[in-house]
Amino acid sequence: MHTYSHEYFMDQALQLANEAVDDGNHPFAALLVHNQEIILEAKNSIHTSKDITRHAELNLVSKASQLYTSTQLAEMILYTTTEPCAMCSGAIYWSGIKTIIYAASATHLDQIAGKFLACHSTQVFKNALNPPIVIGGILEHKAILQHQKYWLNL
Amino acid sequence: MHTYSHEYFMDQALQLANEAVDDGNHPFAALLVHNQEIILEAKNSIHTSKDITRHAELNLVSKASQLYTSTQLAEMILYTTTEPCAMCSGAIYWSGIKTIIYAASATHLDQIAGKFLACHSTQVFKNALNPPIVIGGILEHKAILQHQKYWLNL
Repeated sequence: MHTYSHEYFMDQALQLANEAVDDGNHPFAALLVHNQEIILEAKNSIHTSKDITRHAELNLVSKASQLYTSTQLAEMILYTTTEPCAMCSGAIYWSGIKTIIYAASATHLDQIAGKFLACHSTQVFKNALNPPIVIGGILEHKAILQHQKYWLNL
Repeated sequence: MHTYSHEYFMDQALQLANEAVDDGNHPFAALLVHNQEIILEAKNSIHTSKDITRHAELNLVSKASQLYTSTQLAEMILYTTTEPCAMCSGAIYWSGIKTIIYAASATHLDQIAGKFLACHSTQVFKNALNPPIVIGGILEHKAILQHQKYWLNL
């Protein structure tokens, strides 16, 4: 079996985040990968859903938890274009997903879009029982450029 | 206009949390109050929705943000039977709701149901821009008894 890189999946997630913008939403997207295969994808939909909870990762976890058990989800990888906020980190935790890979850090996003909720995935998972592994910085530069373009019109 | 107490609203929320158990879900419920009137209510529905994100407050914020602007929500009070978890605290923050009143603390819940995610509302709102006011301990004993009954069969 060919092994795809983290960059391969993140690039797909970044393309999906562009689609979210085309839809009229914010530039965020997430993928769920199992055995090197994308099995679910989700975009930010806060504007089109008129629902502020509809972040990409929340949408993904909501779908994933309806389809898979936490035992199954523990074997999957969640790719997201930006480090999950407190809401989405909590959702991912409750779902049982154990691996999170992101491109831009939430601190990068704060610097570009403005700092609101300083509590990000690191703080949410601190002292948690059996927390997920979190890896950041995959195609970080592409995600940062995407945010700069969207939030700062650069 | 008659002024209802925090206890009055919390008692209604606790009754709703009992209904959540009757439905087959966990004992949590939340209300949104504006000008002394309950305008929205939500129960935990993780089992009946087969969706782990369906905590009471997430359900409430999801509905509320579809109906009201963040400016309107800033004038409302969210009552919840237990201090919001990281996911729900994040959702409440993004909605613009500025007042949260709870009965049992998340630490109480951890002691009864088991400690999973140690990050609760205090940690989520720490260092946030313009965080909500959070008041705990309203009918705390009733909420603790409800949790003991549910999680420990006491």
